Amino acid sequence: MNMQQKRFFLSENEIPTQWYNIQADMVNKPLPPLNPKTKKPMKPEDLFPLFSEEASRQELDQEHAWIDIPEEVRDLYKNYRSTPLVRAYGLEKALGTPAHIYFKNESVSPVGSHKLNSALPQAYYCKKQGVTNVTTETGAGQWGCALSYSAKVFGLEAAVYQVKISYNQKPYRRLVMQTYGAQVTPSPSMSTRAGKDILTHDPNNQGSLGTAISEAVELAMTTPEKCKYTLGSVMSHVSLHQTIIGLEAEKQMEMAGEYPDIVIGCFGGGSNFAGISFPFMRHNILEGKKTRFIAAEPASCPKLTHGVFQYDFGDVAGYTPLLPMFTLGHNFMPANIHAGGLRYHGAGVIVSQLLKDGYMEAEDIRQTEMFKAGILFSRAEGIIPAPESCHAIASAIRHANICKETGEEKVILFNLTGHGLMDMSAYDQYLSGSIQDFEVNEEDVKRNIDALEKIL
Amino acid sequence: MNMQQKRFFLSENEIPTQWYNIQADMVNKPLPPLNPKTKKPMKPEDLFPLFSEEASRQELDQEHAWIDIPEEVRDLYKNYRSTPLVRAYGLEKALGTPAHIYFKNESVSPVGSHKLNSALPQAYYCKKQGVTNVTTETGAGQWGCALSYSAKVFGLEAAVYQVKISYNQKPYRRLVMQTYGAQVTPSPSMSTRAGKDILTHDPNNQGSLGTAISEAVELAMTTPEKCKYTLGSVMSHVSLHQTIIGLEAEKQMEMAGEYPDIVIGCFGGGSNFAGISFPFMRHNILEGKKTRFIAAEPASCPKLTHGVFQYDFGDVAGYTPLLPMFTLGHNFMPANIHAGGLRYHGAGVIVSQLLKDGYMEAEDIRQTEMFKAGILFSRAEGIIPAPESCHAIASAIRHANICKETGEEKVILFNLTGHGLMDMSAYDQYLSGSIQDFEVNEEDVKRNIDALEKIL
Repeated sequence: MNMQQKRFFLSENEIPTQWYNIQADMVNKPLPPLNPKTKKPMKPEDLFPLFSEEASRQELDQEHAWIDIPEEVRDLYKNYRSTPLVRAYGLEKALGTPAHIYFKNESVSPVGSHKLNSALPQAYYCKKQGVTNVTTETGAGQWGCALSYSAKVFGLEAAVYQVKISYNQKPYRRLVMQTYGAQVTPSPSMSTRAGKDILTHDPNNQGSLGTAISEAVELAMTTPEKCKYTLGSVMSHVSLHQTIIGLEAEKQMEMAGEYPDIVIGCFGGGSNFAGISFPFMRHNILEGKKTRFIAAEPASCPKLTHGVFQYDFGDVAGYTPLLPMFTLGHNFMPANIHAGGLRYHGAGVIVSQLLKDGYMEAEDIRQTEMFKAGILFSRAEGIIPAPESCHAIASAIRHANICKETGEEKVILFNLTGHGLMDMSAYDQYLSGSIQDFEVNEEDVKRNIDALEKIL
Repeated sequence: MNMQQKRFFLSENEIPTQWYNIQADMVNKPLPPLNPKTKKPMKPEDLFPLFSEEASRQELDQEHAWIDIPEEVRDLYKNYRSTPLVRAYGLEKALGTPAHIYFKNESVSPVGSHKLNSALPQAYYCKKQGVTNVTTETGAGQWGCALSYSAKVFGLEAAVYQVKISYNQKPYRRLVMQTYGAQVTPSPSMSTRAGKDILTHDPNNQGSLGTAISEAVELAMTTPEKCKYTLGSVMSHVSLHQTIIGLEAEKQMEMAGEYPDIVIGCFGGGSNFAGISFPFMRHNILEGKKTRFIAAEPASCPKLTHGVFQYDFGDVAGYTPLLPMFTLGHNFMPANIHAGGLRYHGAGVIVSQLLKDGYMEAEDIRQTEMFKAGILFSRAEGIIPAPESCHAIASAIRHANICKETGEEKVILFNLTGHGLMDMSAYDQYLSGSIQDFEVNEEDVKRNIDALEKIL
């Protein structure tokens, strides 16, 4: 009978009051974003038309390692933070591994995922500078739910473009956004120039984060002063906000009397991975610690393991700044996997640089492996994880199984980004044996990258 | 800017190690259950064919005020307990009330509701005595999810009869049960004698908790030794297990430096209401405190406000013991409201006696009022509540609004039993204006009660 402590919480006055900006500590700083027309490096003020001023400044801040979390945001963080750090005794037992497995349970946020960590400050900064409307894209809907709620709390109107396949496959998340009061449009739509261009060429286009970003960016750019664009991953300021996860986890691991050997996050644009990793990676950079950091990406959209490091657009239409990133090409159209939140062609600039410099690793994981991991986890720990989070679980299981072979008691920490209670139809398909595996088509990627080189 | 503490947690060693059995302290004890054939009072051993032996003993224990929680159950409680006690500053602000509103957030359990508190011990006691299979009924599916997971953790097979209307309206909860490995059958079904009787008389019968209980009880009774029946409310041992909620809340309210003037729980069979109330009611009984306890029931199934106190069956077929309860008659077929978990004709024997003796009150609430309350709450606090829980929220709002009129700073505590993330289609109907209100048909009730009097 194991009566050791399972869950670790911080009291409200122990919750970190600053985010960690790894850019300040990086040996090789990320290359600057480029203006898509002039190809010149962009300054914070060049981003003001798109993002809030504060988010724009944070985006390019390579100086300050610690950035204050506004009091208004800290107050709302307290509605769900600290999130528990959990020792996964059930999973360890199910695997028969000597590894110590911990997960940070971000699924307990009111919107069901870590996305709220950045939606709250982004909405707050918009409100603070007098903006009245916010817009964004969403895949599976986790980010859209977070932004819709955050907009409501700060009295802003939210317009969300949701990737069409998710809009149809996952109606519940759309209903959550509508319950919070947001306007939700399936993307590509006929309501923007970018959407029209796509739909007139390809009427059955099911959308991707790239198409939805184009539409949201267009809406913001054509509604000056009043409407700002926000987004849920990729950008450096989003990763910054997500470091609250790792900063809490660092204190909580200390309460558990351990330090991770391996830190794992699933990987779409990189923000949750950054959030759980950077506060620990800091000690690798500054003190020479040897923790391994593993990004778990879907085999069907493997920008880190199969992409190239190159300047690329963040969206399909080419509206966004050019960013130096690992990418499959902005025209890459991923297979219709169930982890909608990971269907993005590129990686954030910070994680891209860190991967290039050897500070982190990446693994690609197929759908069937990740669902198998999700079912095992749900039966062992009770929590049904989002398909996105299942990638991190699958990777944690891989490494726990290696420990079983070697007998090593490694400490593995992964981020449970969200619950899968709104993804049950995906589990249904897996349980009934009708889930397909997709691998990336290498020729598609090459064609995309070649096309990209001609643009640049 | 409010930086006061919002959420209160107990450390793992502060989590209560005993449940509170109010029967021992009640002035008028509940009348005994009667054998449905002989009409003679039943002893614990008479319940052994149906329930685990330990649950049977707890059911009729009027002696011990404190009952030890088994270590195996305490260990699993730690996966999600203590649940947070939350000061609802957002809701207070939205209402402009001077009242202090607190809620106990049971929605953070891995299965999304308080039901796990009793599913774990019920499954454990079955396992302990060598049973291999468990069966139960479920309405909206919250109890079924809890039992399915609990069975899995203790290596038992679970067979769940789900009320047909919920099985069809809420496929996601069924999928959760299946993901945990349970077998789920819509009730009434043709797989039992009770189900066949109903369906051959009324082929379109959409089921109720009463029909599903009949089927599960029949399965248990026809599978002696190997299969036991478990249930999610009504019975006294279920209420006992749920007192973990109020026992934690008592310590947490102390941390907040307050004591509730009003305690509110939604009401189906009474177990969550009992759970949040009894530990506080103890001080009314023993020390003459004057806290008010309010059961919030649906206007369409109002056993406490419109029923009679009388011996009745727990199920439609008349398989269960006769219980002294407030009831609408075991043949009462409630309207198809969205709070599937509250569609039950009777109330548990303890709460029935306490209502009769004036220790508690009841309020009936219509669907439109409860959804309105749920939306207000979700936009203010971020959490989308289950329709069942919305009844408690609606009642809390009523009393907070009274405080607004009188200027009183009353302390209101309610139990948030579960989240509504799997009930989004119900919210959709409310938001699109297609929700109907149902009131009970008094003549139906009278006819049922008259019929009952003839049986007894």
